[in-house]
Amino acid sequence: MTTDSQETGPPGRRMLDEIREQPAVLERVLREGVSEAQAVAETVRELGPRFVLLAARGTSDHAALYAKYLIEITLGLPCGMASPSTLTAYAANPQMSGVLWIAVSQSGGSTDLIESTVAARRAGAVTLAVTNRPNSPLAESARLHLDIRAGQERAVAATKTYTASLLTLWQFVTGWRGEGTGAARALPELAAQVAEHAEVRPIADRYRFVDKLVTTARGYAYPTAREAALKLMETSYLSAHAFSGADLLHGPLAMIDQDRPVIAIIPEGVGGAAMRPVVDQLHQRGADLCVVGDTSVVAGSDCTIGLPTGTDRGVIEQLAPILQIIPLQRLAHTMAVARGYDPDAPRGLHKVTSTW
Amino acid sequence: MTTDSQETGPPGRRMLDEIREQPAVLERVLREGVSEAQAVAETVRELGPRFVLLAARGTSDHAALYAKYLIEITLGLPCGMASPSTLTAYAANPQMSGVLWIAVSQSGGSTDLIESTVAARRAGAVTLAVTNRPNSPLAESARLHLDIRAGQERAVAATKTYTASLLTLWQFVTGWRGEGTGAARALPELAAQVAEHAEVRPIADRYRFVDKLVTTARGYAYPTAREAALKLMETSYLSAHAFSGADLLHGPLAMIDQDRPVIAIIPEGVGGAAMRPVVDQLHQRGADLCVVGDTSVVAGSDCTIGLPTGTDRGVIEQLAPILQIIPLQRLAHTMAVARGYDPDAPRGLHKVTSTW
Repeated sequence: MTTDSQETGPPGRRMLDEIREQPAVLERVLREGVSEAQAVAETVRELGPRFVLLAARGTSDHAALYAKYLIEITLGLPCGMASPSTLTAYAANPQMSGVLWIAVSQSGGSTDLIESTVAARRAGAVTLAVTNRPNSPLAESARLHLDIRAGQERAVAATKTYTASLLTLWQFVTGWRGEGTGAARALPELAAQVAEHAEVRPIADRYRFVDKLVTTARGYAYPTAREAALKLMETSYLSAHAFSGADLLHGPLAMIDQDRPVIAIIPEGVGGAAMRPVVDQLHQRGADLCVVGDTSVVAGSDCTIGLPTGTDRGVIEQLAPILQIIPLQRLAHTMAVARGYDPDAPRGLHKVTSTW
Repeated sequence: MTTDSQETGPPGRRMLDEIREQPAVLERVLREGVSEAQAVAETVRELGPRFVLLAARGTSDHAALYAKYLIEITLGLPCGMASPSTLTAYAANPQMSGVLWIAVSQSGGSTDLIESTVAARRAGAVTLAVTNRPNSPLAESARLHLDIRAGQERAVAATKTYTASLLTLWQFVTGWRGEGTGAARALPELAAQVAEHAEVRPIADRYRFVDKLVTTARGYAYPTAREAALKLMETSYLSAHAFSGADLLHGPLAMIDQDRPVIAIIPEGVGGAAMRPVVDQLHQRGADLCVVGDTSVVAGSDCTIGLPTGTDRGVIEQLAPILQIIPLQRLAHTMAVARGYDPDAPRGLHKVTSTW
């Protein structure tokens, strides 16, 4: 973790360093970010939005999707994922009074997010930018801002900015409900356990020659499935497909066979329970199944990554996604290196992406 | 297209029959569905919803996504895709006054859609079901109903119910704006041209041994990319990934190489123009590119499926998705049969899917 190693270390060193940095980042978000989150939450509560739109791309889109579940389930507010092109390319003239627009972007520099946020604000939305750069154009274009405090991200594959975004959004939504954030207290320590000790090598070995893979989950854990698939695509060029457990049963199940392993994220709690019929169907098809999460829920899996979950031993289901993704980031890193790729130099990726 | 052939014909006969039935179905939707669409539209306009939530699974989810673009762009109303599990599994207590809830389902029998529609109605939403079965539980659970009039669907892979849903939703949204539906007049004839004459065999030959493929588009055509990927997954068990052109540049671009062909849907109009930077990047990476749509836009593609687009020769961009999907349905059918699969009997699929 020295500066030197970041410059010249083995393939994927930056990504691995940032995976390991997450416990410290989460600790910083809890310590330094809580008052900002509470203040922004109070402003939003007073404004009383009736709908929420979330706009993001790539990894940040999965953090935004997590916030969608959180807001819908715990605040009862209808939420949608924005389609930025309707505001930019198509120049729609929207009616956005009563809308809270949340744009999530590590860099705060994506052109279409800036443009669509400006358009949403002009249309009457209360705008909130969630970024890793308080001075970025996106942060400055929105009325409100939350800093995810992840520190400079040097790896191309986003890891620490993802978990920092999740926790920042969780602090904000929890504050919006007028509640305290004590439930997250153990998170940094649990994240350190997972970052250092989760057993991913046997799974990386098992998947050494896999080139197609499916990830699945429901509810709060569904963004984990999406983000894990993206990490595997970005770093190992796998064809990794994420499906909500419900959608998987509507067609794509046909492509699951013994040659296409499935990673299911199954936390203790409601989302995990809702996965049981999906897991039953996967077993019936003879799918090779890896369970991440509460492994006690599912017998007969081919491999497992246990996580500290459940209120007695770990974190509540709401916070579990912050832990779930860490071993999957490590799996993506380990698989890429094992295949001779450098996750710090993926083909054709830039850190800030402009789209029209 | 006789009854006999539907019972005992060659593999995929039912799917092919229903692909070819689409011009007649579209004609029926225009003729018989317009007054119902106008009446429902008038009721909705008087109620004046401020936010729209769309709920659906599988193919119907892509029809719902099309409606999202249509409503956002032409009505300026913020829209979101509902996450049914927040209302069912998590039993959120939502505040839905001012919300129009649109549930789209061919069968009208999916348990989670029925339950979430009932919950949305109880929470104050105006509920609208769009189904192929006016007597289905979903249709009966919603305040308003639109019949897509596709006739009985016998094939497992949905084709005619998709285009019928798109056109029904288009008629409804157009009526909501207080406009007439004359722009769709030529659609059945153009659909017949495409259904019978689109040249898909050379592409099916070219892709004979492909097992990973990417589809991409932006705006109105993005649901076409999603639906085409689903059809290819369901019938040929390909790993077919759909990305919005914008998201493709945020990570997944790394997995595009010469071995993974890309099907880009590029209509004349705004959405097609927004694809140009994406196509440029794909060319730079040496991707094998097939363009569906206005082939004059993009030079140097490896294969093309031309469609009648543009106001002079075909239909407006809004309606183009109804034509775009037809050759891609035929491609899915042709590829599946060429590989020895029966698209009418895909592994592990049932027509009505229940999820919790």
